[in-house]
Amino acid sequence: MQTPTTWIKSAATLTPSGFVEHATVQVASGQVVGVWAEGEAPAPQSADQVLDLGAQLVLPGFVNTHTHAAMNLLRGFSDDLPLDPWLKEHVYPAEARLQPGDIGWGTKAALLEMIASGITTFVDMYFALDEVAAATRESGIRGVLGRGLVTVAGRGQEALAEACDFHRRMQGSADGRITTWLAPHAPYTTTPEFLEEVGQAARALGTGVHIHLSETTREVADCQAQYGVSPFGLMRKVGLDRQPLLAAHAVHLTDDDLASFAEWKPGIAHNPISNLKMGCGMAPVAQLLALDMPLGLGTDGVASANSLDFFLTMKASIWGARGITGDPSWPNAEQILRAASWGGARAVGLDQVTGAIAPGLAADLIGVSLTGAGLEPVHDRTSALVYSATAAAVKTVLVNGKLVYQDGAFLTLDQEAILAHAAEISRRLVAVN
Amino acid sequence: MQTPTTWIKSAATLTPSGFVEHATVQVASGQVVGVWAEGEAPAPQSADQVLDLGAQLVLPGFVNTHTHAAMNLLRGFSDDLPLDPWLKEHVYPAEARLQPGDIGWGTKAALLEMIASGITTFVDMYFALDEVAAATRESGIRGVLGRGLVTVAGRGQEALAEACDFHRRMQGSADGRITTWLAPHAPYTTTPEFLEEVGQAARALGTGVHIHLSETTREVADCQAQYGVSPFGLMRKVGLDRQPLLAAHAVHLTDDDLASFAEWKPGIAHNPISNLKMGCGMAPVAQLLALDMPLGLGTDGVASANSLDFFLTMKASIWGARGITGDPSWPNAEQILRAASWGGARAVGLDQVTGAIAPGLAADLIGVSLTGAGLEPVHDRTSALVYSATAAAVKTVLVNGKLVYQDGAFLTLDQEAILAHAAEISRRLVAVN
Repeated sequence: MQTPTTWIKSAATLTPSGFVEHATVQVASGQVVGVWAEGEAPAPQSADQVLDLGAQLVLPGFVNTHTHAAMNLLRGFSDDLPLDPWLKEHVYPAEARLQPGDIGWGTKAALLEMIASGITTFVDMYFALDEVAAATRESGIRGVLGRGLVTVAGRGQEALAEACDFHRRMQGSADGRITTWLAPHAPYTTTPEFLEEVGQAARALGTGVHIHLSETTREVADCQAQYGVSPFGLMRKVGLDRQPLLAAHAVHLTDDDLASFAEWKPGIAHNPISNLKMGCGMAPVAQLLALDMPLGLGTDGVASANSLDFFLTMKASIWGARGITGDPSWPNAEQILRAASWGGARAVGLDQVTGAIAPGLAADLIGVSLTGAGLEPVHDRTSALVYSATAAAVKTVLVNGKLVYQDGAFLTLDQEAILAHAAEISRRLVAVN
Repeated sequence: MQTPTTWIKSAATLTPSGFVEHATVQVASGQVVGVWAEGEAPAPQSADQVLDLGAQLVLPGFVNTHTHAAMNLLRGFSDDLPLDPWLKEHVYPAEARLQPGDIGWGTKAALLEMIASGITTFVDMYFALDEVAAATRESGIRGVLGRGLVTVAGRGQEALAEACDFHRRMQGSADGRITTWLAPHAPYTTTPEFLEEVGQAARALGTGVHIHLSETTREVADCQAQYGVSPFGLMRKVGLDRQPLLAAHAVHLTDDDLASFAEWKPGIAHNPISNLKMGCGMAPVAQLLALDMPLGLGTDGVASANSLDFFLTMKASIWGARGITGDPSWPNAEQILRAASWGGARAVGLDQVTGAIAPGLAADLIGVSLTGAGLEPVHDRTSALVYSATAAAVKTVLVNGKLVYQDGAFLTLDQEAILAHAAEISRRLVAVN
């Protein structure tokens, strides 16, 4: 039997070599078979499906390289505070009131928001990972899931054992959409010995490590004082440069860090909105791109970023970088649009799976409409996507060739029920504050 | 005969003293008569209209304190270049191809975008002001219009005479919605003698002056070198501190400038997106707010900012400021939300007309819906408005108590025709580039 084929027609489709006008994307078994220019596509067979997206542009789905999805429950709770009291006096006490099931609902609330913004892969660090995995499975999108590991209260070993067990049970599940990485929280909430152990476990399992790194000047100074090296230096010292590593934030890099990147290419999850809003600074984007680092964009959790709109993240990454450096040319719109998909896939070792529209990669595709008063006239599509569009421009989302969102309707998740549950839980979490 | 009254019901209405829950705004003759809490509003009479906005929040309409509306025609044209070659090699040549009628269409395209983002007053600096005024009249919103004046090519006097004539013909027209200010472009495109003359003319006419000031370090250095004072210092030297002054940008302020603000309170149009994207830096927002300056937000033209979404402008003003200063507390969401309406009205001397919901001020009101996956749960409405919402959350816009936008429909302007004309014109403008 011939594999059923879907033909996705659009005004233009973005491939690694640029936009193909009036393109048809050929999809079979969830993967892209080819991208055809106008008049060159083979004729569909009678059993084939045709999805005509009209004037929409088709882009690779976005890869959100760093989030704590369930924190959608805490959107707008205790803003405008410094990082330390914000975490310790507000966020941690609220999180301590989470009950079984809450994280699943919070994750689903985030998945709604991410899907509506064109995110087809998300990289999560949180707790109750079975709830996160179930939500991911249900949503139809791709998740790289990691249980946050800390050694405070002596629970490090138990948590690591759980994380390894989770990996063995879940890696490659949900039709391959779920990947699991180990996720030690940060150097300042773990010990070097524990990090070394995490690295050994990751290499034994054949997976990667996702960690917060060099987010604040204080973190870097403390690490230097305590261990004589920067947070990135500590990674090398404990052997965490020997398996895939995804470093979230990477705001404050030392000369040694940058020198080490000549050889070592850890993935970087750049979270401009969270970093700017919390006053942490910003990763040196232009410098990291010049070093050909695998740089992706991330939202961080909604508790700090307040939004998972990836178009806002793209804007913030350019506005913030230029605000700090004063250089109006770098990074440019094309670089950031590429970082939003392919850069992110590369940062989490999924560039052979997703992040671009090319034969053999998953059909993780979004359709974006550049029409309306806030977008027209369109002189340059890349500019319109990066500088003018918001999530409202996303009309179509497919993952593994399957539609999960179309014209405002969620096809896998029940928006009304999820938002009602999330609202109820979130009231409980903050009730005594 | 009794004046017909409109009663606008909402989930909550933002007044100068905070949100009034389940409020009813009483409007007559285009003005707010009162804001009533639940159960306290008088009963509507039979001839009265009731506009029930359900779960929407009602806010004062935004005041966009600096734009070049017709530049919507150049959205996304030649991004990612330094300011100087961007202006001289790309924007000016394209503008030189503008034909009669083009500026009207471009302005209407911008008015669509501004209305959809909740802007009820815009402050414009451009050319062909009769076209801008006609577009403003048709749109139903409020405009503070100024013809850009430059002395290059010896056309200063002629342009100033035209501007004074425009003021005499148009001031207070369109039911008082149109105000006209004189708008010398900048110190570097005029002469001190001309600026002095503009000030005299403004004072004779009883109006204000709108000018670009201290946008780049180079501009400030050149002004110091040429005239021995900063651009703000030059304003005082030529007497432009003797009538209302609106300074667009105010990015690079000297100690003398800041010291002078103890007594002198020029309006500041802070344009964070344009300034960040062009690598110019950012006005010291927290410092200006601490000095109680009349600080409003502006978009600048779409050619530099790429969007007139005022929610993006609010976000950029906070992200950028914190990225530069590292302080995660200032400016905060409440300050910026207030700057977006009342601060802007104060900056252009319209705070006795608009910018807040209070008895005697115009009923320039917007209804915003904080529902959906990108906004819920809502722990804090101000936070949700500033950090999470985009223009897509705006559902209702009234100016002078008259509906101009409702649930995506423009009630005064023909979106389809305007965008079609704008697209056609914009293709011509850039055709030979």
